[in-house]
Amino acid sequence: MDYQQVINNIYTNLKNFENKGTVASYIPELAGVDINAFGIHLKLINGLDFSVGNAQQQFSIQSISKVLSLSKAFSLVQNKLWSRVGVEPSGNPFNYLTLLEQENGIPRNPLINAGAIVIADVLVSELKNPKEDFLKYVRALTNDDRITYNYKVAQSEKRTGFKNFAIANLLKSFGNLDNDIDTVLDFYFHQCALEMSCVQLSRAFYIFANHGKCLKNKQYISASQVKRLNAIMLTCGFYDEAGDFAFDVGLPGKSGVGGGIAALFPGNFVITTWAPGLNQKGNSLLGMKALELFTTKTGRSIF
Amino acid sequence: MDYQQVINNIYTNLKNFENKGTVASYIPELAGVDINAFGIHLKLINGLDFSVGNAQQQFSIQSISKVLSLSKAFSLVQNKLWSRVGVEPSGNPFNYLTLLEQENGIPRNPLINAGAIVIADVLVSELKNPKEDFLKYVRALTNDDRITYNYKVAQSEKRTGFKNFAIANLLKSFGNLDNDIDTVLDFYFHQCALEMSCVQLSRAFYIFANHGKCLKNKQYISASQVKRLNAIMLTCGFYDEAGDFAFDVGLPGKSGVGGGIAALFPGNFVITTWAPGLNQKGNSLLGMKALELFTTKTGRSIF
Amino acid sequence: MDYQQVINNIYTNLKNFENKGTVASYIPELAGVDINAFGIHLKLINGLDFSVGNAQQQFSIQSISKVLSLSKAFSLVQNKLWSRVGVEPSGNPFNYLTLLEQENGIPRNPLINAGAIVIADVLVSELKNPKEDFLKYVRALTNDDRITYNYKVAQSEKRTGFKNFAIANLLKSFGNLDNDIDTVLDFYFHQCALEMSCVQLSRAFYIFANHGKCLKNKQYISASQVKRLNAIMLTCGFYDEAGDFAFDVGLPGKSGVGGGIAALFPGNFVITTWAPGLNQKGNSLLGMKALELFTTKTGRSIF
Amino acid sequence: MDYQQVINNIYTNLKNFENKGTVASYIPELAGVDINAFGIHLKLINGLDFSVGNAQQQFSIQSISKVLSLSKAFSLVQNKLWSRVGVEPSGNPFNYLTLLEQENGIPRNPLINAGAIVIADVLVSELKNPKEDFLKYVRALTNDDRITYNYKVAQSEKRTGFKNFAIANLLKSFGNLDNDIDTVLDFYFHQCALEMSCVQLSRAFYIFANHGKCLKNKQYISASQVKRLNAIMLTCGFYDEAGDFAFDVGLPGKSGVGGGIAALFPGNFVITTWAPGLNQKGNSLLGMKALELFTTKTGRSIF
Repeated sequence: MDYQQVINNIYTNLKNFENKGTVASYIPELAGVDINAFGIHLKLINGLDFSVGNAQQQFSIQSISKVLSLSKAFSLVQNKLWSRVGVEPSGNPFNYLTLLEQENGIPRNPLINAGAIVIADVLVSELKNPKEDFLKYVRALTNDDRITYNYKVAQSEKRTGFKNFAIANLLKSFGNLDNDIDTVLDFYFHQCALEMSCVQLSRAFYIFANHGKCLKNKQYISASQVKRLNAIMLTCGFYDEAGDFAFDVGLPGKSGVGGGIAALFPGNFVITTWAPGLNQKGNSLLGMKALELFTTKTGRSIF
Repeated sequence: MDYQQVINNIYTNLKNFENKGTVASYIPELAGVDINAFGIHLKLINGLDFSVGNAQQQFSIQSISKVLSLSKAFSLVQNKLWSRVGVEPSGNPFNYLTLLEQENGIPRNPLINAGAIVIADVLVSELKNPKEDFLKYVRALTNDDRITYNYKVAQSEKRTGFKNFAIANLLKSFGNLDNDIDTVLDFYFHQCALEMSCVQLSRAFYIFANHGKCLKNKQYISASQVKRLNAIMLTCGFYDEAGDFAFDVGLPGKSGVGGGIAALFPGNFVITTWAPGLNQKGNSLLGMKALELFTTKTGRSIF
Repeated sequence: MDYQQVINNIYTNLKNFENKGTVASYIPELAGVDINAFGIHLKLINGLDFSVGNAQQQFSIQSISKVLSLSKAFSLVQNKLWSRVGVEPSGNPFNYLTLLEQENGIPRNPLINAGAIVIADVLVSELKNPKEDFLKYVRALTNDDRITYNYKVAQSEKRTGFKNFAIANLLKSFGNLDNDIDTVLDFYFHQCALEMSCVQLSRAFYIFANHGKCLKNKQYISASQVKRLNAIMLTCGFYDEAGDFAFDVGLPGKSGVGGGIAALFPGNFVITTWAPGLNQKGNSLLGMKALELFTTKTGRSIF
Repeated sequence: MDYQQVINNIYTNLKNFENKGTVASYIPELAGVDINAFGIHLKLINGLDFSVGNAQQQFSIQSISKVLSLSKAFSLVQNKLWSRVGVEPSGNPFNYLTLLEQENGIPRNPLINAGAIVIADVLVSELKNPKEDFLKYVRALTNDDRITYNYKVAQSEKRTGFKNFAIANLLKSFGNLDNDIDTVLDFYFHQCALEMSCVQLSRAFYIFANHGKCLKNKQYISASQVKRLNAIMLTCGFYDEAGDFAFDVGLPGKSGVGGGIAALFPGNFVITTWAPGLNQKGNSLLGMKALELFTTKTGRSIF
């Protein structure tokens, strides 16, 4: 199959789409992004790469980072993790507190904000220098030392992230946060402020398509753990649009409000997209369409 | 891989498991089933069959029938279906009314009771002789005319299924039920009262593993529709345990309170189990364990 | 104080109010009522009567009947009642099922539909000829044998009251309905289809202002029970507008979708209004305004 | 009526009650209180006072302070208040976030924590020296300059009040908090840390029984506003036990986790109790019983 032609076609079809959604505007650093940016990158498990558009341009990966932090925490504390966070879809927007309160401070899954804040708490407890060590982990996965945090984005979130402070305080009130709230959220806001390009994201997510082994063949997490992480991405990666994404695209994946999506077919490929316009559920509008076209045209989905 | 040995081992390991869960008791016909019954059947896409235990014994398939009725309705009315029912996991038990009320009578997905009752309504509208025609469809899929309804079970549910009557009335109050409530529920209770063995179920679910084609190579639904049905099974097939099933087993599937489970790996195999003891979420306890062991031992899951 | 002048003034002020709300339209019998009908009746505990407008015209009392059926059931089974229904405001619209499901079939209070259906069930169990006996009770309270059911209204509700059927089935599924669903709802729909005028309603509600004694000085329920019924009216009589009614009017009372309201000041007076246009919460728009004006002008509220 | 004898009898009956409930223990300063403390004070509108037990001993008034802060805010900004907070019972525990989230940051009423924090925000905006000015207001109402904050209690709450921080952050995220979170909560925690005796509380609440005029006959708020405050106390003063309190006692009132209750009969009397053991809903167990006995024995309730 001529994958380059496939993604070129998708790119051309969607590039001039009129309704591109809305760029996230809650912090100035995200609001300034060009709505017309659009990139796709495909990395086959055999190593071949295909890209089109702004695939090399870095953007704020935001919630996509939750999968990376989860993989690190899972490899560090193993199944102990699941006493503090569930693996069920929430059926609710990403930042809701309602279920968290009704379920006594145990977040439904690690890919909604509440769950990711618990994961951040685990990493703050387990890592010597949390921010530095986590950055090293992402750089090692990707084999790329240019990746770094955007400190302005992290600061902006700290000033305006009242809902995340509400969530962290609620977790703390239920005894499901070991460390100081400000420390945990400082880590969390930095993690979300990682900047990566589609190409870099594909390299980072390669371990999830390759049974836990990175590009340099180092085993970061076990094959059995990767299977479980992929299951979580499939059922919980798109908040209250997870069912739609499974239905339309049929790949495990994760989106971020920066407009990025990383998805993968275990044993086959990683595909990443970036288009900053979001739909009403907060997922990249063109990115979701691009992935739907890709699995439809190629017939390559897990279902 | 010696699949016969794999399922034999699983059978032997689990057969004498002490905690077998609880047999569904809300109608006398289900309550009388032997808690020790246990069968597994594996059907590869290439046609090979492997079975162990009570794989030939018929049981009440109950909610597993929802996938079959959904496939029929989807093939009849195509995407018009999705204006009346969603494709998102509910995060709630199978028979809850709360979300249905809060979301104005549009069920979250077709595999919870509310959604399946909407599907039943579609079939009552579309089929000339709904009960007869649906039975013919299941027999044709399976190539087995011995399959039939258990009329006593259907009658029992009609007498005691107050929650389903509540759901149907709520749907009607929101204008999401075209036909008479009693007619729709009569169809629904019969559909759930189908009796099949693991072997028969594997044959019926073969179309979902084989891109829409049955054993005799007839195309019942399109490959693209099958992809979507499998996605729905994965995200919604086990109610509020869907995330757990994806996490532990990693296959699209559907359970029933009769103790059956049908699961599949697209392009690879169908696997069915029957063990009447249920866990607290209403899914077969040994069946779930058997499937988790199967995908762990063989490494064959979609993730 | 010149009460006649007070209510005349209120009547004149409001009579030509432009926004009169919307007449309930879910059954044809209610939809046909004249939106301009407007009546007020005031009955002092000392026996003096004052009325203005259509105070003698009968209308469908609908949910106002819930207080009458509750008073009968309370006098029959005493405090046993409270094991089957609570006394807390629901904070939800009158016909919601959500709380009922979450609280295992125990309605929050007897003045929402679910609670009133439980009360209907109690009366069906306790009364020999429920519909006849209840009618006798209301006629006796009022000392007026012309009061009767509107059978057409009752029939209409039976044909279209899907939400009430949903509620009754849900109650039944939780074991909180002793009798047959159709029998209970037949009683309930008749009870709601009582037709009374403001004058008649004031006479019926006289017992709640007079420590349980009717106009002819017969004790129907104890003073202590009346105190509790009044408390329930105050906290629960206007669904999710109960707080507003207490805040604006400051009297125990009950509204119905027929546009009637009955309110009272214990030891002082009963005041009833009828204006068929409803506000968005389903309470009579002019009626609520009239009562607010009355307690503001006279300074006579329980607060 | 011999009120002294009535309250003596109640005191004697309840004093040795075995089940006294549980003293609030979430901060050390409250946990240390003697479970056997018990006081009642009755102040008639004509000036007569009756007391028994520990009626002169100061305790932490906690949430009872919400009525005092509300009265101050209401008198300062009038009906503008109601664009930021509702007047409906919540049907939920005092510190729940769920409704607040679902209703877009508008608290149901000013007597649950979320609502009281909004009121605190209003006072922080309106008062020059919020803590000092509010204390002056309470001292003036009571005509007693010995009343003061317990600063240790306020500090303890600041250290452990994660749920209140969560609420304040959630309010802020919805734009319903004008001032800095720490400033508002500092005021709120001090307000709750006021220490008063039953006798002092009765004097402070005298304005609500006396149409807005204090003991020295100064008008603090209008009679119409007092009517509304009393309505809010009746429907919302006891969280999800408000209906029960209306049903059993039949007086507007407010409780605090310090074990105090202040209740009143407009135009008649104020009655206050203190007994630190709480029931499961967080209201003083003996206090509620004492008030129920009082209105039952004397027949003096608003219903």
